[in-house]
Amino acid sequence: MAIPDADIHPSATGKAAAIVAQHQKEEPITFYSGWFCPFVQRSWITLEEKKIPYKYVEINPYLKEESFLKLNPRGLVPTLGAPQKDGSQKPLIESNLISEYLDESFPDQTPLFPKDPYEKARMKVWVDHITTRIIPNFHKVLQHTEKSQYGLDKASADFQNALKTWIQEADSEGPYFLGKEFSYADVALAPWAVRLWVLEHFKGVAAVPPPGKGGADEELWTRWRNWSEAVASRKSVAETLSDQEHYLPLYQRYAEDKAQSELAKATREGRGVP
Amino acid sequence: MAIPDADIHPSATGKAAAIVAQHQKEEPITFYSGWFCPFVQRSWITLEEKKIPYKYVEINPYLKEESFLKLNPRGLVPTLGAPQKDGSQKPLIESNLISEYLDESFPDQTPLFPKDPYEKARMKVWVDHITTRIIPNFHKVLQHTEKSQYGLDKASADFQNALKTWIQEADSEGPYFLGKEFSYADVALAPWAVRLWVLEHFKGVAAVPPPGKGGADEELWTRWRNWSEAVASRKSVAETLSDQEHYLPLYQRYAEDKAQSELAKATREGRGVP
Repeated sequence: MAIPDADIHPSATGKAAAIVAQHQKEEPITFYSGWFCPFVQRSWITLEEKKIPYKYVEINPYLKEESFLKLNPRGLVPTLGAPQKDGSQKPLIESNLISEYLDESFPDQTPLFPKDPYEKARMKVWVDHITTRIIPNFHKVLQHTEKSQYGLDKASADFQNALKTWIQEADSEGPYFLGKEFSYADVALAPWAVRLWVLEHFKGVAAVPPPGKGGADEELWTRWRNWSEAVASRKSVAETLSDQEHYLPLYQRYAEDKAQSELAKATREGRGVP
Repeated sequence: MAIPDADIHPSATGKAAAIVAQHQKEEPITFYSGWFCPFVQRSWITLEEKKIPYKYVEINPYLKEESFLKLNPRGLVPTLGAPQKDGSQKPLIESNLISEYLDESFPDQTPLFPKDPYEKARMKVWVDHITTRIIPNFHKVLQHTEKSQYGLDKASADFQNALKTWIQEADSEGPYFLGKEFSYADVALAPWAVRLWVLEHFKGVAAVPPPGKGGADEELWTRWRNWSEAVASRKSVAETLSDQEHYLPLYQRYAEDKAQSELAKATREGRGVP
């Protein structure tokens, strides 16, 4: 195939395949998804948590299909076909904005954003931290090669520090970021939390310290592990994941720093999430 | 002074000085501001548009004053002291999040965010475009020197393209982004629109094409000029600006690529808004 990145498994597998099969009929909302994409998974978890009816459409963003480009000229997933009063759909992009839109449009079904304006804004500060601090450092570790201008140890330390800053702001009891209630702060980081294994698999580094090896920060890492286990076992998170084997060739290209996604290129150029 | 960046004019001047003088008494909300900062101006315009009572406190973020670091360990402005039920204040950071919080907390006073969830989300996509596309390119032009790895022409073209993409999404009649109503989309870009002169002053490039020189895009640039004039003459925008002479030494340091703000450093490293 001309574009190596486009040569990905064509559809969701494992538990995610079952969810996809249940969302094939027309609905007011269309969810243009890529089964492998962690940004997509943020919006997908939101749809599942809130039990919102939607039609699932698989898009390979590397193939730049014309019919999809008409809806979203940038060709990125996730894209939501959002229902309008006249029965048509208009596109909405950006995983966090899609999720907040869904939460506001279906306020009575499992709210994921706090009602109190201050609590909501504070939560969004820490969602922002995920996008601007945690994800870029995840990618610096993942895409590190011998040619990188930075060391793997430094990237790994930066990544762990970004996680620590975040979990320090979480409710001390947990298990979730805001406490007993699952919220969008959890949704926004979950897709990377359940992909930490790729750092160990490809780079041979422990993404986070193993139990008992957290040194002075052991308490924080214990809190991290509690959060991480609670989130990974959450139905909406587990059921929007495909079989591990199909992620491997995709992340292999990132690990060799050959991936051509916008995020891969931004990381290569030292930028953040574009 | 040890930190050259800290050697800035200590307080607002011109029209902004009058606004500051009117906001000296204690209020439930404290606005920790830097008179020169365009991110600050986003939140400041929001406070003024909505006529929200607030106490203005000038902070020099380069001085890292201990009392302020206790409230916001990152030491950045704008920071809002947001009122809590027990009469205390808690900090809120990030200009866009502060503004949305204020709009939600005072919903009846000049709403700046659309009520309809889709229209609001769509507007935020274009606020996001300002932060991730327009501002980084503004700084690439501003901080360009002979040592830069990129050409001034390329940076200037990228900046103009980012503006064109944005204005193309604006209501065709205007004058504002959403049409006749002033909204947060206008607030979010206004501080840079009224600072375009620094690109011409320091880099000798026209930030946008002069009237009649827009070529095939003349219509778009006409729309840009209409927007820009409407926004620059808006009371809340004009009155939160200081005298031009006091911005000069600040932007001089950016123009020589010696500024030490987080954004200046990020631009130097090829990253976006940190």
